[in-house]
Amino acid sequence: MTERSHPYSLREIVQSLGGEVVGDPATRVEKAGTLDGADAVSITFLMHERFLPELHKTHAGAVVLAAPLRDATPLPRIVCVNPHAYFARVTALLHPLAMPVAGVHASAVVDGGAILGKGVSVGAHAVVGSKVRIGAGVVIGDNCTVGDDVTIGAGTRLWPGVVIYHGCRIGERGILHAGVVIGADGFGNAWEASGSSEANNGRSDNGGGHWVKVPQIGRVIIGNDVEIGANTTVDRGALDDTVIEDGVRLDNLIMVAHNVRVGAHTAIAACTGIAGSTHIGRYCRIGGAVGISGHLTIADHVDIAGKSLITKSITQAGSYSGGYPFEETRAWRRNAIQIRHLDEMAKHIKQLEQRLARLEGKSS
Amino acid sequence: MTERSHPYSLREIVQSLGGEVVGDPATRVEKAGTLDGADAVSITFLMHERFLPELHKTHAGAVVLAAPLRDATPLPRIVCVNPHAYFARVTALLHPLAMPVAGVHASAVVDGGAILGKGVSVGAHAVVGSKVRIGAGVVIGDNCTVGDDVTIGAGTRLWPGVVIYHGCRIGERGILHAGVVIGADGFGNAWEASGSSEANNGRSDNGGGHWVKVPQIGRVIIGNDVEIGANTTVDRGALDDTVIEDGVRLDNLIMVAHNVRVGAHTAIAACTGIAGSTHIGRYCRIGGAVGISGHLTIADHVDIAGKSLITKSITQAGSYSGGYPFEETRAWRRNAIQIRHLDEMAKHIKQLEQRLARLEGKSS
Amino acid sequence: MTERSHPYSLREIVQSLGGEVVGDPATRVEKAGTLDGADAVSITFLMHERFLPELHKTHAGAVVLAAPLRDATPLPRIVCVNPHAYFARVTALLHPLAMPVAGVHASAVVDGGAILGKGVSVGAHAVVGSKVRIGAGVVIGDNCTVGDDVTIGAGTRLWPGVVIYHGCRIGERGILHAGVVIGADGFGNAWEASGSSEANNGRSDNGGGHWVKVPQIGRVIIGNDVEIGANTTVDRGALDDTVIEDGVRLDNLIMVAHNVRVGAHTAIAACTGIAGSTHIGRYCRIGGAVGISGHLTIADHVDIAGKSLITKSITQAGSYSGGYPFEETRAWRRNAIQIRHLDEMAKHIKQLEQRLARLEGKSS
Repeated sequence: MTERSHPYSLREIVQSLGGEVVGDPATRVEKAGTLDGADAVSITFLMHERFLPELHKTHAGAVVLAAPLRDATPLPRIVCVNPHAYFARVTALLHPLAMPVAGVHASAVVDGGAILGKGVSVGAHAVVGSKVRIGAGVVIGDNCTVGDDVTIGAGTRLWPGVVIYHGCRIGERGILHAGVVIGADGFGNAWEASGSSEANNGRSDNGGGHWVKVPQIGRVIIGNDVEIGANTTVDRGALDDTVIEDGVRLDNLIMVAHNVRVGAHTAIAACTGIAGSTHIGRYCRIGGAVGISGHLTIADHVDIAGKSLITKSITQAGSYSGGYPFEETRAWRRNAIQIRHLDEMAKHIKQLEQRLARLEGKSS
Repeated sequence: MTERSHPYSLREIVQSLGGEVVGDPATRVEKAGTLDGADAVSITFLMHERFLPELHKTHAGAVVLAAPLRDATPLPRIVCVNPHAYFARVTALLHPLAMPVAGVHASAVVDGGAILGKGVSVGAHAVVGSKVRIGAGVVIGDNCTVGDDVTIGAGTRLWPGVVIYHGCRIGERGILHAGVVIGADGFGNAWEASGSSEANNGRSDNGGGHWVKVPQIGRVIIGNDVEIGANTTVDRGALDDTVIEDGVRLDNLIMVAHNVRVGAHTAIAACTGIAGSTHIGRYCRIGGAVGISGHLTIADHVDIAGKSLITKSITQAGSYSGGYPFEETRAWRRNAIQIRHLDEMAKHIKQLEQRLARLEGKSS
Repeated sequence: MTERSHPYSLREIVQSLGGEVVGDPATRVEKAGTLDGADAVSITFLMHERFLPELHKTHAGAVVLAAPLRDATPLPRIVCVNPHAYFARVTALLHPLAMPVAGVHASAVVDGGAILGKGVSVGAHAVVGSKVRIGAGVVIGDNCTVGDDVTIGAGTRLWPGVVIYHGCRIGERGILHAGVVIGADGFGNAWEASGSSEANNGRSDNGGGHWVKVPQIGRVIIGNDVEIGANTTVDRGALDDTVIEDGVRLDNLIMVAHNVRVGAHTAIAACTGIAGSTHIGRYCRIGGAVGISGHLTIADHVDIAGKSLITKSITQAGSYSGGYPFEETRAWRRNAIQIRHLDEMAKHIKQLEQRLARLEGKSS
């Protein structure tokens, strides 16, 4: 743990965050820790009763837990409704993230036409384009590039090396991690056969045709309270905009294609790709490495298991999966080869049934 | 839409791009729009007759469509051979992309030995190495890094934060989006058991051996008219080069490993990975999140559906798929578990057939 | 090949690297090459006897091969235990990678509190935070950002555009390729229903609840001799640390989530994602585009085939696979549709067996 920590008494914590102290409210804690790793100056939490054995062994100085488990430990404790969320807030209290000093670093290049709010910090070697509007308290990290006519809402933080293309809109209190790219061109290409009347360029295409770039003139619009993980890319729209609604959580290395809409409070795990023009509902939870085809609609409250391929719209809330089960390679070889005989197998079963029915008719 | 738009009459458009005006050629349009989103000063297009219902409801001022559908609307229109490609060119005309001013930004670090063509723009905090040759009109974006001895052909644009390693060759009129990495080392590792006679280093490897890095001394050679999406990586070759031929389109977050060759005019969607030394043909269309094993050959004109795993060479043009169908999680659990019994199931079916044939013999 | 090459005699090579010369030890070579591509001043190698036909056709001036094949060619040759590893070292000898000059570039921003070892090179526009400790001979590439309180061991090289967040620890002799992000926040989110007593903020969440960010206060700890490919991300731990042990090889575009541990000398191919808190053993070889769920344990010496989805812990060394076999799209359509009937199919087979047994009973 690298951030400086500040000691708090349990009394101070509940004064700030709510909840109820059971045991000595003067108990002081300095750090947040896991049940296993916590020491006497650490506070930990119990997320689920299946961790009760670890709770009984913990060396923590205090515990956050839910009301039904208030007597599960003799340790000083804070009883609350939602220990996971509560502990997140305790952690933020004990380990406040270091904030860079406000002001524009001498090496940053900020266009004269950019408007910076109060307390904005622009890091070393950052570049901020013309007509950019940056809200109060925004942090633009080192080596970031913010294109012309971008708007960034108050309290948003760009970690180093983020690139935002021209014209995009980022909401308030957002977090964009290193390497995030917002607003690169969507993958728009029109196929053109060779020698067609409008093919007014002299490029060699081996006589087989070539791709014509479709200009991407939409923007990316990102709502408030959105967090986007490292090296994730959100492409700008072709004509209309790509939209990430309020409260969305995107993990690392995710691809959001042009004209996608991700509904409010949806969370998407790493390495997932969403193809163009697909609309994802609100309150969805999408696993890692999921692939979602283009032009689909996914309803609200849909959960999708990791590595599923979604090729059709999902109109009902619920849980969906599509992973191929792994096994020891020798077994996999024997079984996977049969995939290519499934249709045949189904026909054989049907034929067997017919033949059997015939025999049963005779023998009865 | 963020770029300044310029109004054009339909007459001016066909003078520039070909095609035929039906209706008033003085009709002026300022913007490109979708059938749904277009307003009276917008031009839109009809890509396929299945969108005819939307065409009848559009508020657009003009439409681009194909000859067989010339009478599908009373609106002023441009009739052409390929409405998708034509509309791409109309969009570029109406919404020209802002170009940075030519010249080297004061904060850029350009080696004295670099040779810059006419009209080159080097952005803020960009770094250009020694012996780099940059063609006329090239744009090197802010915070880009171009290694020693790189060549970039005329008219190519690097968006911010692109990294090109030493010695790579980029063709003309290319577009490299933010976060693209060209020429990082391929994944070359030789396994070495502990204590073997040539293992001349004293590293602790727990007695179980270790990897020896295989130096990657090939380059990346990229042809003309290639577009590469955000955060895509193309590794340099081990001994020979990695090659991306003319007219290729790579979407975001793609991995092209060392010594891969991607044939001309092939398009590859996001999140796809191509392992080392595989050669992809020309005019292929490869979906998103496809995985292609190493040392394969894929023929020309091969289409591969999203999320397929390609483990063998494909010698015939055609369409190939390999995705596992998703379903509601409870159904998936019941069905997926049977995958591990497929071989057994096939054997049972065979046995049933034999037993049934025996019975049929008796009863006949 | 872009690096300057230095000619060596075979005698000089074996003096430096061991092995035995067969043929004229004065034979001089300048370059490393493939069997196919080598010319008279190139040295090549034979990795496996299946390449003997290529060996017989090579134009190379010399060959590296294993003792059992010492007489497979009349060419001057070096006989050794492990030709792959040996040839890697020959390549490094002939093609030494150009090293940037030591010193801090005038445009770099290095905090006064950073401690730089002997011979450190800090590139143009790099940013180095406070209390950073950088070992001897480290290279920080152009446009890199190194956060506060980071430690980088001697001999490690960061290629351009790498971002290391505050507090992380990088070992010695490591290689981090362009676009790598070390230490971004893990994907930690606590769900909070609307209106719960501790929900002390006034955000609109449509009445359906919202995510609370879980601060990520752990670090990333990377061992010695680790190489990490372009645009790969390794997230910092939530409370404890994320750990990459000695000698690990990570390819490009890999996602290592918070609190993952990757065991020593494990190699992981591109596009693979490992979810939170999973522990991978030592000496594993994990293919490309593999997905590994969270909170699993993978034993030492486990091989996993490309694109597998690993949803359970693997306790035995061995080889595991889970890819769905691809086929021509029309065949795939027929077969894939049956996946959703597998459970039903298994039940039908069981019923057929029962009916058949009944008939067999009657007819016997």
